[in-house]
Amino acid sequence: METINMIRFESDYTEGAHPQIIDALVRSNEEQCPGYGVDRHCERARALIKDLCGNPNLGVEFLVGGTQANVTVIDAMLHSYQGVFCVETGHINVHETGAIELTGHKCLVVPGVDGKVPAEEVRKAYKAHWRSADHEHMVQPGMVYISSPAENGVVYTKSDLIALRRVCDECGLYLFMDGARMGYGLMSEGSDLTLADIAELCDVFYIGGTKVGALFGEAVVFKSREMHRSFRYAIKQHGGMLAKGRLLGVQFETLFEDGLYFTIAKHAVDCAMKIRRAFETKGIEFWNNSTTNQQFPILTNEQMEYFTNAGFSYAIWGEAEDGSGRTIVRFCTSWATKSENVDALVAAIEKM
Amino acid sequence: METINMIRFESDYTEGAHPQIIDALVRSNEEQCPGYGVDRHCERARALIKDLCGNPNLGVEFLVGGTQANVTVIDAMLHSYQGVFCVETGHINVHETGAIELTGHKCLVVPGVDGKVPAEEVRKAYKAHWRSADHEHMVQPGMVYISSPAENGVVYTKSDLIALRRVCDECGLYLFMDGARMGYGLMSEGSDLTLADIAELCDVFYIGGTKVGALFGEAVVFKSREMHRSFRYAIKQHGGMLAKGRLLGVQFETLFEDGLYFTIAKHAVDCAMKIRRAFETKGIEFWNNSTTNQQFPILTNEQMEYFTNAGFSYAIWGEAEDGSGRTIVRFCTSWATKSENVDALVAAIEKM
Amino acid sequence: METINMIRFESDYTEGAHPQIIDALVRSNEEQCPGYGVDRHCERARALIKDLCGNPNLGVEFLVGGTQANVTVIDAMLHSYQGVFCVETGHINVHETGAIELTGHKCLVVPGVDGKVPAEEVRKAYKAHWRSADHEHMVQPGMVYISSPAENGVVYTKSDLIALRRVCDECGLYLFMDGARMGYGLMSEGSDLTLADIAELCDVFYIGGTKVGALFGEAVVFKSREMHRSFRYAIKQHGGMLAKGRLLGVQFETLFEDGLYFTIAKHAVDCAMKIRRAFETKGIEFWNNSTTNQQFPILTNEQMEYFTNAGFSYAIWGEAEDGSGRTIVRFCTSWATKSENVDALVAAIEKM
Amino acid sequence: METINMIRFESDYTEGAHPQIIDALVRSNEEQCPGYGVDRHCERARALIKDLCGNPNLGVEFLVGGTQANVTVIDAMLHSYQGVFCVETGHINVHETGAIELTGHKCLVVPGVDGKVPAEEVRKAYKAHWRSADHEHMVQPGMVYISSPAENGVVYTKSDLIALRRVCDECGLYLFMDGARMGYGLMSEGSDLTLADIAELCDVFYIGGTKVGALFGEAVVFKSREMHRSFRYAIKQHGGMLAKGRLLGVQFETLFEDGLYFTIAKHAVDCAMKIRRAFETKGIEFWNNSTTNQQFPILTNEQMEYFTNAGFSYAIWGEAEDGSGRTIVRFCTSWATKSENVDALVAAIEKM
Repeated sequence: METINMIRFESDYTEGAHPQIIDALVRSNEEQCPGYGVDRHCERARALIKDLCGNPNLGVEFLVGGTQANVTVIDAMLHSYQGVFCVETGHINVHETGAIELTGHKCLVVPGVDGKVPAEEVRKAYKAHWRSADHEHMVQPGMVYISSPAENGVVYTKSDLIALRRVCDECGLYLFMDGARMGYGLMSEGSDLTLADIAELCDVFYIGGTKVGALFGEAVVFKSREMHRSFRYAIKQHGGMLAKGRLLGVQFETLFEDGLYFTIAKHAVDCAMKIRRAFETKGIEFWNNSTTNQQFPILTNEQMEYFTNAGFSYAIWGEAEDGSGRTIVRFCTSWATKSENVDALVAAIEKM
Repeated sequence: METINMIRFESDYTEGAHPQIIDALVRSNEEQCPGYGVDRHCERARALIKDLCGNPNLGVEFLVGGTQANVTVIDAMLHSYQGVFCVETGHINVHETGAIELTGHKCLVVPGVDGKVPAEEVRKAYKAHWRSADHEHMVQPGMVYISSPAENGVVYTKSDLIALRRVCDECGLYLFMDGARMGYGLMSEGSDLTLADIAELCDVFYIGGTKVGALFGEAVVFKSREMHRSFRYAIKQHGGMLAKGRLLGVQFETLFEDGLYFTIAKHAVDCAMKIRRAFETKGIEFWNNSTTNQQFPILTNEQMEYFTNAGFSYAIWGEAEDGSGRTIVRFCTSWATKSENVDALVAAIEKM
Repeated sequence: METINMIRFESDYTEGAHPQIIDALVRSNEEQCPGYGVDRHCERARALIKDLCGNPNLGVEFLVGGTQANVTVIDAMLHSYQGVFCVETGHINVHETGAIELTGHKCLVVPGVDGKVPAEEVRKAYKAHWRSADHEHMVQPGMVYISSPAENGVVYTKSDLIALRRVCDECGLYLFMDGARMGYGLMSEGSDLTLADIAELCDVFYIGGTKVGALFGEAVVFKSREMHRSFRYAIKQHGGMLAKGRLLGVQFETLFEDGLYFTIAKHAVDCAMKIRRAFETKGIEFWNNSTTNQQFPILTNEQMEYFTNAGFSYAIWGEAEDGSGRTIVRFCTSWATKSENVDALVAAIEKM
Repeated sequence: METINMIRFESDYTEGAHPQIIDALVRSNEEQCPGYGVDRHCERARALIKDLCGNPNLGVEFLVGGTQANVTVIDAMLHSYQGVFCVETGHINVHETGAIELTGHKCLVVPGVDGKVPAEEVRKAYKAHWRSADHEHMVQPGMVYISSPAENGVVYTKSDLIALRRVCDECGLYLFMDGARMGYGLMSEGSDLTLADIAELCDVFYIGGTKVGALFGEAVVFKSREMHRSFRYAIKQHGGMLAKGRLLGVQFETLFEDGLYFTIAKHAVDCAMKIRRAFETKGIEFWNNSTTNQQFPILTNEQMEYFTNAGFSYAIWGEAEDGSGRTIVRFCTSWATKSENVDALVAAIEKM
């Protein structure tokens, strides 16, 4: 259902790609490249990413989408009898049509705090597993899956990540970060993490392009070279090996050669925070303290109607947990959000 | 390994996309569309394809790549205890890293003739299965998988397809055509099939975009609406649902709104046949009677060297079966092949 | 860890088989039978079960164990993109090491009441699924899995089952009953169901032998003949086809030819209820109102110690939910429980 | 279809268990044991097997059947993108309804010699894989699967096994021996292997009970303790963990405490060789030089009829490869074969 002429804030993948990426694709279109991600654009993008991560020994591969990245990483790294810790609302647990289960792995839900996986809950669940007399009757934990920003826009801090690293080392678990919106996290005022921190603290993570400027594409980064060697088999086996792999190379090259990735992510976050502050000024409550490109004000039906009538679209997220009958909605910005549209929305909020 | 300055004939996916497709992507880049293939471009592309197939009741979905299309179709349509008939050289049997097996289905090899699945061999294998006293100890046949053109460039004729349809009806098997290179088949002088014939005779097939003008994309076409309803679950579960689905819609819209798909495929086939005839004139033998964009002359080492030195790249396919020590090589054209490069190659052949 | 000389009430599979079953196995040992469950013992057992179910058109197959039965039924009946509703504590969700996920199906947890799946929760979850705009991003519901007795000893009543049947018919879902302890349910005073009721109301269920008199064995009963025809493939594919299938035939023949299954189950339930009443007389609270062979009194540490010192073993189930520090324990009887041991336990309870 | 009053030579699992095993099961029936294979019978059987293998560090687990053992071992040891080398006629490739594929692994067929996997073919296939430019598009080899005796009764010799061990070490492949009929191989005059040799040369193997005296049961033996630790998860996940695991313990204890396994296997082999020699004396050709309990004479239709009319059953194996219209049949002995029946058959052969 497409509604015309709305100013859209409901998701961060409504447009195509950043103009510089489009330009690069047009420019390289006639080049003859070998297929499957071994061309010079992919090689250069790999080098740029390893450089930013400060580690020449990383392995970098490019996949088209997030579900694909999640399932390929998880299935490639875990033994068949192992599962993956995540929160109830984890993308892999809820919104991937059982893709993880399709390849035989169970999502092992731990209680989240603020949408994040607390290190202490991992430790507790892990110990409970092995203490159990019949642990072999339950799925063996093998990995911790986190998203930063999480589904609710909240970011993991450096101390969150250090704590998770510690428990993973203690327990022999892999730490995997889904970074579908990583750019918006890195440029958030709530984040004290760099790409190099993430590369040091996680066993594997990916840098999302789809939601941060690219037409599509996720760059999976591995610490272990051994894993990396076999990961390309897993990509092909999961149907994720793009024939014209150069398309991924060209896009990530463009995103990382001059810091475009960070510039455009910052723009989105700035827009989102402007919107947040406008709502706060009007005394509107928020679902959480997201500092990234997704903001979740809690609105009454009248307020929702007001914004719809004023021509702004947003996503319905759920009922307010306080039983007040209000609704949690999502206003979402992106690299493509126009400043004048943000200004218009802020004006509407002020007039509310 | 990229060698510079060669005129490349080794594969049909070395370039990006046809300029009209690039233009369409650029033009639509700023549009705000809903994700996951329900936007107006996808809807229009669906309508165009159903129209060309002459059947408004078909289901059409778009996937990024061929392996993904194969595995998603097969896993969505078969019961878990069923397998799929194919030839030894079938792409699903050899070149997809066990993607079909990953989701639990076995490739059931039948003896091919000229790289194609003969209807009679399907009948024989099917009957042998059910006649066996312990048939439950073997994988139950559920589908016939064919590629047209096949891996070796040979096309199925209308009578081939009618015979397969008949045996599939007799045996309760699905007929699935992998059309990764379908355009080159449809425009081949060896083919008497139309898109409408294929849509009538197959239960499911796909029209390949990746190798015929698009950056990527395969349009899967279903006869059964029931299957179609659930197929989108299977796409998501297999990690194949593109967030910015509009990219697929825009490309197939462009390919089919003015017959571009057929024009560019014809160009490639014409180029290939020119090359074939030049070789034939020089008395060079061919591996088979391909009438599509892939041509397989059998060369001596000296001849191979000659072309390499002359600046033409090609793919090594295998040893000649006659024990002569010669090599089957592949010269491959595409929508992107330049006429002047074909002329240069033809001149080189003549001078050989 | 085996402790000697305890009177064991901790589980219902500590002994071998009922003596009549042992006799039948010894008697038939020298017979030469065809393998894989098509021998005359299996055929007779099938006939006896269909007779008791009052439906000659049912399909009956025999499997060795419960996890095997669960996973084979679920994987054979569901499409690959479908999942199965169950309660949080469902055996398939917790205690089968991800066997269901191994074959690609997700357990879709609905809120249980008293350990059972309420029909209304199924309806709600089903409707919520299809109402969702992005339902294809979530696992499609295909089946309802229930156990009766459930893990906590509680049985489904006829009206429970009729309500579930109704919602399954409305929604196009299969209804599957895990009957690992079915005998103890059927003979319970809390149950108003007959085997014929179950056969009429469920699409598929199994009658557990392992915990009710047999060395091993579960009899899977199907309503659909079509499913039944292919189910033997699924059994073999899941590694569950017993070479000497006659062993299952002989056991179920013995259990059902003279009502042995019901007599021994009644004995176990009578023993359990005697124990329950003894505890109740002493004012001991129970976790729930189980009327089957598993009873869950809530004991203090002193009380637990008292029984251990008195030579009675039981299973630790969990902490009391009232925060009192007490423990839910399980006393479990079976067809093998000796009346004198029950009397001894009752005496100990009285002296407590 | 059961035919009465035939003397049956068509398979080696037509009877129940050896009387000593039945006795042991009867004797231990009332014992209360913990479930799932951690009881004292299993522990003793483990110790006996490790002793016979001459290696206290092995891991031993018991499974119910052969398909289950094959799939659980293969899935537990391989990465998801790896496959297993076997011969065309390998049990896993033909007669397990795609059980291996169900868990995502492809059978990689190498040309067999005399039904066995030649070390040199493994080396060739392995090298060809890694030499290929697009090896990631094919399944990565991870294991070699052999059966000894193979499907055709032929055994691997010590030098066969040493050669396979060497190539597996070179290539980083696991060596896995399916020993469903291992006893008949060990006691064959064609074999120079001991159980200790097998334990030294293979990474994992199993000792078949089902066809060698037991009601059911296969003892899987692992070299690696690390694998062994997680193997019990895999057993449960694949639905193979027997609740009353003691049944497996009791049977293997009986088979190995006094050499019963070897005595009864020798009896079967002696019977089979008597039959072979009788046929040979009459000038009957054999399909191969099996020295184990399966013998494959090549008979004319008249000869087949003669034996059927004389009351002897056998299995039809296939058409003679020489185009003579004769049939390869199988005469199969077992621990249960009665000497007087062998004498009767030999007499019939002589009178032929």
